[in-house]
Order: sequence, then C-alpha cells, then structure tokens
Amino acid sequence: MTTPGMPLLALTTGEPAGIGPDLVLRLAAEGVDDARVVAVGDPALLAERASRLGLAIELLQAAPGEEVPSVAPGQLPVWPVTLREPARPGVLAPHNAAYVLETLDVAIDACRAGHAQGMVTAPLHKGVILDAGHAGFTGHTEYLRDACGVEEVVMMLATDAALHAERPDWAEGASLRVALATTHLPLRDVAEAITAERLTRVLRILDADLRRWFGVATPRIAVCGLNPHAGEGGHLGREEIEVIEPTLAALRDEGLTLDGPLPADTLFTPRHLAGVDAVLAMYHDQGLPVLKYAGFGRAANITLGLPLVRTSVDHGTALDLAGTGRADPGSLRVAVALAAEMAGRRKAPVSVKNSRL
Amino acid sequence: MTTPGMPLLALTTGEPAGIGPDLVLRLAAEGVDDARVVAVGDPALLAERASRLGLAIELLQAAPGEEVPSVAPGQLPVWPVTLREPARPGVLAPHNAAYVLETLDVAIDACRAGHAQGMVTAPLHKGVILDAGHAGFTGHTEYLRDACGVEEVVMMLATDAALHAERPDWAEGASLRVALATTHLPLRDVAEAITAERLTRVLRILDADLRRWFGVATPRIAVCGLNPHAGEGGHLGREEIEVIEPTLAALRDEGLTLDGPLPADTLFTPRHLAGVDAVLAMYHDQGLPVLKYAGFGRAANITLGLPLVRTSVDHGTALDLAGTGRADPGSLRVAVALAAEMAGRRKAPVSVKNSRL
Repeated sequence: MTTPGMPLLALTTGEPAGIGPDLVLRLAAEGVDDARVVAVGDPALLAERASRLGLAIELLQAAPGEEVPSVAPGQLPVWPVTLREPARPGVLAPHNAAYVLETLDVAIDACRAGHAQGMVTAPLHKGVILDAGHAGFTGHTEYLRDACGVEEVVMMLATDAALHAERPDWAEGASLRVALATTHLPLRDVAEAITAERLTRVLRILDADLRRWFGVATPRIAVCGLNPHAGEGGHLGREEIEVIEPTLAALRDEGLTLDGPLPADTLFTPRHLAGVDAVLAMYHDQGLPVLKYAGFGRAANITLGLPLVRTSVDHGTALDLAGTGRADPGSLRVAVALAAEMAGRRKAPVSVKNSRL
Repeated sequence: MTTPGMPLLALTTGEPAGIGPDLVLRLAAEGVDDARVVAVGDPALLAERASRLGLAIELLQAAPGEEVPSVAPGQLPVWPVTLREPARPGVLAPHNAAYVLETLDVAIDACRAGHAQGMVTAPLHKGVILDAGHAGFTGHTEYLRDACGVEEVVMMLATDAALHAERPDWAEGASLRVALATTHLPLRDVAEAITAERLTRVLRILDADLRRWFGVATPRIAVCGLNPHAGEGGHLGREEIEVIEPTLAALRDEGLTLDGPLPADTLFTPRHLAGVDAVLAMYHDQGLPVLKYAGFGRAANITLGLPLVRTSVDHGTALDLAGTGRADPGSLRVAVALAAEMAGRRKAPVSVKNSRL
C-alpha cells in the first residue's frame, strides 16, 4: 500500500510493441512499497495487455498536477498518452514513435514542474524511432540531456543493494555502482575520447550526484585505467600517464576522493571495492559485463547530471517476449527502488564544494 | 596423502623475492589431494622462507626422472635450482633473473621428457628480468610458446568449479572459463589486432584444447563482439560485420560450435552462459574483470596451444607480502587443481575433427 507522503514516480511505458507495458503492469499487480507510481502511456494499450497477460489491473486515469491517489496492488494510476495506431506485441509501428517520445515529454515536464519527483523509463526501440524520421535520435539518455538543456550526462548502472546481503563475501558493499566515461562508441574510438576535459566533467558530475542523490557525504570513486594493467607503467599504453593521472591529481586538488587509475581486472575484488562508492570505467565493456554479472537481472541504469531523477531498466524491448508473460520485472523493480531512494534525498542539503549542478 | 598414480606437477616457485615460495610452502603444509607436486627452486631459499613463515616443511630433494615419493602434508619434494645470490623478501635482485628462467627450463624440459605431466607457475617479475638484460622478455606465456616452438598460444582464465556449487543461481555452470583473443596490448591497438587470421587461430586452439585437456566432446564457445552491443548492427562499429561474423561462419563450417558475436555486457548472465564451455573475449579488460569478480582469489590462468599442461596463478609477485604469511594460496590451489584435471585427461582420446595439435 502506498501512502501520499511517498515520492511520485512517472513510469514511461516505452515501446508499445515491447515488454515495457508488461513490466509496468506486473509491477502494479505485485504492488510497489517504496514509492507512488503513475504509468505514462495509452490506457487502452495497458488494458489490452493486462487482459492478454491475465492480470486484473484497475487503471485510474489522472493528469499531471492532480493528486495521485494511494493505491493497493492491482491498481495503477495512468497519465494518458494516446497511441497513434493500435499496438501489437512484437510488431514495431513507426507511427507510434511520436507516441513514445510524447510519453517521455509528459514525464520530463511533470518532473520539471514538480508534479513528479522522478521518472523511470521502460525500454524504447531506437531503430523504429530513427525509421520514423527522428534523425539523430540516439536514446533516452541523450534525449533527456537535450530536453533538460545540460551539456553532459553520465550513465551509471547499479545493482540491487539487497543482492549483496545475500552474498556474505560482499557484505562490505551496498550496491555496486559503475559509471562510464564513454558509452556507445566503437572500441577503436575510445582511446581518443578519453580526454582530460571529458574525465573532469564526468568525475565532477559523478562526485556531485553521489552527494546529491545518494547522500554520500564524501564520495570515494575508484577509477579504471584505460589500458590492460592500467598501462603497466607505460609499457601497455601511455594514456594513464599522460591523461588520466594528471586529471585525477587536479581533481583531488578540488577535493574529490579518487583511487586509481587501477587495473580493471583486479579492481572488482573485495580488497579494492571496500569503501568505494562508485567505480568509473573508461568504456562500456570494461565496466558493464561485471556489473550485469553481479546484478543478473537486478540492476538498473541511472542518468546523472540531470536536474531531475531518472532511472531505467538495464535491458531492451525484448519484442519476442511482449505479451507472453515471460518478461521479468526485476530490473524495473530495482529502477523504481533506486529512483525512490534518489527522490527521497532530493531535499537533502547539496554539498556545494564540488557541485556544478 | 598423494599416491603414485596421480599426475606429477612441477611447481616453479617464481620470483624469489616475491610470494611464490610462500605460496608453494603453504600448499605443501596444507597438503595437495589431487596431484603429486614437486617444487622447482632453491632448497635453501625454501627452507629459509619456511622458517620465516613458521611452517615445518620437510624438503625432499629429487631430480627429474627419478621417482617422486608419495608425500603427506608437511613434505615437499624439490627439484633443486640454485639461486645466483641470496634472496630477500621484497628485494628484487637482477642476478636472480637467470635463476627464475632456469626454473622454467627445468619444468618445461621435464614436461617434454614425460617426467612431469604438467607445470604450474608461481609469479615472476617481468621488470627485473628485463633489467637483467633479457630484452624482449614479455612473460611466462610467450617464453613457453617460444620454448615449445609453437606459433600461437591462448590465455584462458578459469574459476574454481567448487565456487559455483556455492552459488545456486549459477548451478548450471561448472567453472567459468574466459579466453582472450588479444592480451597485453594498449587499448588503442586492439581493434586492428582483431583479424580473421588471429580469430581463426585462437578459436581453433580453444576448441581443440577444450576437447583435449578438458574432455569436452563438443565445445560450445560464446564469442564476444568487439564493440559495445556487438556493434549494434554496424551503428557502433563494423568489425563484427566485416571480420568477426564471417570468421565465425567459416569456423562453423569446420565443425566448431560458436555463439555470437554477442554483446559482452549481457553475455555473462545465466541465459547466455547456460551450456557454454568457454567465453572468448576480444581483449583483456572485456573478459577478465568479470572472471576475477566471479572468482575472487579462486581463479587461475591456463595457457592453451602448448604441447604440455601449464597453469598459473592469476596474480603478481606481491613483493610487499613476501615472507609475511599474508599471501593467499587460493589461486595456486586452483591452478594445481586445474593442471591435475588437465593432466588426468592427457591420455583420453583426442577428438581429431578440429584439432590442430
């Protein structure tokens, strides 16, 4: 049972042919304890999908700015957005790309107006949005960055903290958090992209947002090297010596607490992770395989650097699973829990020392 | 208690200023169940280090080709090699580089002559071997490759199979095995190094040695893409389309069973690992962080493509821990267990279909 004092989170239901509607409905059926949630999507789609999944869900239509009622499991408030054409599980329809983007706009506007305290996004399908003519669309994260008018955002993934309680060998850590210095770049372009300017911006955002949204008073960040063995003293690459080490030194002078650059293959072990609040990996496949291995279905994605709380599932639309009842809402549940945690800290005093936000 | 029928493994004790002697002595003190072991090193060094560690070890001098006696915990057969100068824990001595290399030669010769069924190497220190004038020395693996006269070897790490029994969520797998298509290259050189020729050689070796040494009748190998999301259909790099996919297709025609190229960040999850005998990562930090996270101190390194069995610890010399008693022999124990497993399969019929060895 939710209560009115809890943060309100807008859940965008994502690509209507994918598993996004399924996951939001399953979450509503099971109930959410740590936040009030409102789905953003087409009520007719949700009703049809619920029926297909055999879920009895009472949809409660509302609008941003109106009071969202407290609900019990089986009830789901909805801010309606209308599909451009009917959606069928597994079948992408370019006309509905505008619908997907509208659900995002509704959630962003509600967060910025204070009608919601955060947003959680179900997966969308980049290809169909590009096919529909939205050239240059590269994903939720960049869309949010541009909509909020910020220059840089940072992608961070976190595992469910509860996972670690089940693994006594990892009792030190709460959740494992891995942020990325670069994201969706071909591997051959990564080394050039690791500049002092980029690392400085990313580490300032990571430090500031660990304070702001996660209540970490003095964040300690472990930074991976770019090269194997963090370059082994220059024998396996010189970016650590020429770029990363001087940048970390300058940021330490600003007051950031940074370990590294450390070899990525030994960083993710208890000795190095003890006391660390987040790891900064230099690129996608350096940090995310271990995060997703550790999280197996119980990890979520967080966009840092925004003026609002945004989390996301860590998986795609899984078109083949839509409407089957086999989609696992584990990641969505973690995304909601993380957004609730972040939103609950929103009013906490923000440490100004290193914050650029 | 060991028995004469067990495979004999030569344990090179590595850099004498590091933790290698400590680890071999601790293993001897605790006893080895699955193999007979013989240390290769200076008996005076081992006696001195045992005394420093407070371990009562009876050293039994022997020579390659002589019968190695069955031993109980606390007894350690040794093939003597003489230090060039006395070794002190933590203090590198370039004169002893020749000693370290001689221990390797003794073990290699014994394996090739059939006096041992495999070798397990404690860590050496590349820097001091280079400083001593052995220009071009790049590590155990390449030294063994050249000593055995083979063109290519493959580095594979594996976790202790027993670990997985403790994690019911991973009950599917025995040990996790990760091989590398490239190893100690600067990141900016990796993309160019992923050629059809290299992938073909590496995958043939991996397939053949999973059959030969691990008794896998039809190895199934999951291959990572090079780029994030395995290139996402060419949007994040074209090496998957231009190099990796055609190479895998050609190897499938030879009879190899290969999954991929798969996105590395989702490959290490139960759905993709089920039934997979080994993962091939394209580069060091794509595969080893997750392997070492999964193994935390209970993983070991295996060199494939050699005419002999060679395993190794997955860590370095830890000069600061030598002689302190704080070095953990977990990885050495796994390395011995893996070598014993491999050596025990040595006489099993080798599937010829894809074997190039």
